[in-house]
Amino acid sequence: MTVKLTLDEGIALGRKVLHAAGVSDANATAVAQALVAAEADGIASHGLSRLPAYADQARAGKVDGKAMPTVEQTAPATLRVDARDGFAFPAIDLGLARIAAVGANAGVVALGIANSHHFGVAGHHVEKLAERGFVALVFGNSPSAIAPWGGSKPLFGTNPIAFACPRATGAPLVVDLSLSKVARGKIMVAAQKGEAIPKGWALDAGGHPTTDAKAALDGSMLAMGDAKGAALVLMVEILAAALTGSQFGYEASSFFDAKGPPPRVGQFFLAIDPLRIAGPSFAPRVDALLAAIVAQPGTRLPGDRRLKLRAAARRGGIAVPAALHADLTARAGG
Amino acid sequence: MTVKLTLDEGIALGRKVLHAAGVSDANATAVAQALVAAEADGIASHGLSRLPAYADQARAGKVDGKAMPTVEQTAPATLRVDARDGFAFPAIDLGLARIAAVGANAGVVALGIANSHHFGVAGHHVEKLAERGFVALVFGNSPSAIAPWGGSKPLFGTNPIAFACPRATGAPLVVDLSLSKVARGKIMVAAQKGEAIPKGWALDAGGHPTTDAKAALDGSMLAMGDAKGAALVLMVEILAAALTGSQFGYEASSFFDAKGPPPRVGQFFLAIDPLRIAGPSFAPRVDALLAAIVAQPGTRLPGDRRLKLRAAARRGGIAVPAALHADLTARAGG
Repeated sequence: MTVKLTLDEGIALGRKVLHAAGVSDANATAVAQALVAAEADGIASHGLSRLPAYADQARAGKVDGKAMPTVEQTAPATLRVDARDGFAFPAIDLGLARIAAVGANAGVVALGIANSHHFGVAGHHVEKLAERGFVALVFGNSPSAIAPWGGSKPLFGTNPIAFACPRATGAPLVVDLSLSKVARGKIMVAAQKGEAIPKGWALDAGGHPTTDAKAALDGSMLAMGDAKGAALVLMVEILAAALTGSQFGYEASSFFDAKGPPPRVGQFFLAIDPLRIAGPSFAPRVDALLAAIVAQPGTRLPGDRRLKLRAAARRGGIAVPAALHADLTARAGG
Repeated sequence: MTVKLTLDEGIALGRKVLHAAGVSDANATAVAQALVAAEADGIASHGLSRLPAYADQARAGKVDGKAMPTVEQTAPATLRVDARDGFAFPAIDLGLARIAAVGANAGVVALGIANSHHFGVAGHHVEKLAERGFVALVFGNSPSAIAPWGGSKPLFGTNPIAFACPRATGAPLVVDLSLSKVARGKIMVAAQKGEAIPKGWALDAGGHPTTDAKAALDGSMLAMGDAKGAALVLMVEILAAALTGSQFGYEASSFFDAKGPPPRVGQFFLAIDPLRIAGPSFAPRVDALLAAIVAQPGTRLPGDRRLKLRAAARRGGIAVPAALHADLTARAGG
């Protein structure tokens, strides 16, 4: 059973829930817009389902709902944002706005976000940069879930990478992936149903491959691409945490509950002006490559599904599970 | 049977082979140094075994052995190198030298290398930047080997990613991986021996999974990490080729023979000064993360094996297969 909301209704409900938890209006708006954008793209795991935990964390002070992020230009082409233990979304929005100005001159910008929180759909942030003409990359770290290759204890987060670039025609191309083989949520669902998981998804607490979902939750997740993927996980951990001055996955508290200190993870962005390197050929060449892909039967472009769902949501709204909607409505005080 | 050479003897032999093929002294030196550095690290597939094909390509004009690469600063933080259909190594060396000067001021530099060739061990280039204090990334494309996800015909190269960063103690950390599940060489060896390959390595010409090594060579290779890895392959193709103004994998001629026009692939570098973002905490924090990894039994750090082999090669030289050594000596004219 679901309740249908327009995007504006979803954002308004989200803002009310966050206001009731003591979050400032500017921060509540940034967070609610980001979560509803995830819903619209069909990414419910990063949508309004996150709101109860976000609100609980704001009430508990694990995230500072009134934080005012700061931005500093530290060199002609580098920016540093301190999220100040607040939500990631307003801190990232602040940084992205400055990238546009700095990048138009410098040709490339590096932006580190420190003392941050869960940043939702990684691809949405770089998509905004691509809409402004940049080729953009982001690397984020998250609380530990993946063991180092050969080890047995979670040390790294699932550490997403996202990439976006302009095309000559249509919306930007967006690539967005976490580096775990599967989302942890899939293992949680299997554990709830008492089902086995495929070999290769996870290790038990002793570091041995397991098909037992419950044992996997007590153990660690495997990286996509095995040893190669594990090397990429390490790379992202360094870029997102060490390079931004943030905490590593094994130091960070959970995004899902209100216990403990702020997670203080980091995000690292790079934005490149393709006109300064390839020149005007860039966007038509991307289109030529994408045309060569879709000319092969059985292929589709990354993000195609999201864009279709987004268009449908703009027309027809989003469907929120009734239990979640009731929880949010109660939290909103109405 | 192998012939033992000191590193200097290996470089001298390589230079002679290239001189005999009409390569300029500056270019021959850059190429020979790079190939011997690969040998020293135990990466024979990117070492002197490449030299006969390189020399044949120089003779045929597929690579311009006398090319003089050019570098241009196109914005305060962007550089563009044109390899001018010459070898990649001198072009990259030219770009890396400029990164040091530009990056110290700008805080981050983006460098595109256009009209380039095989760039050998990706990790060696970023390691040089990390030795100068930068956190560095490189993305390269290569002739087509991997089909797009869901498709059946090779479109992308095996597209390496390499990353390096300074540590507080010891040599830089280097991560270096190609995005195919396995090296194509492994499938060639299996085909020669008439052995089967594991499922998941490759597709046949019809796009179906195969364990027949010969069918795999006529088909396409799979990306590491399946659909997620295939998305990364696309990202690297755009960064290395579209963003640098170079040719896509499906447009590029082979690195292994002297047929056809120059491959004109590209490489894209990013170098970030960590002092401008994290500040002086960066290198000690990397060391803390690496210590947390090796504290777990069964783990090792990326590059550990290479560094041990490198130290041994500096003391004891490199072992070149006798047949290759005889070929190189004959090509060197003595």
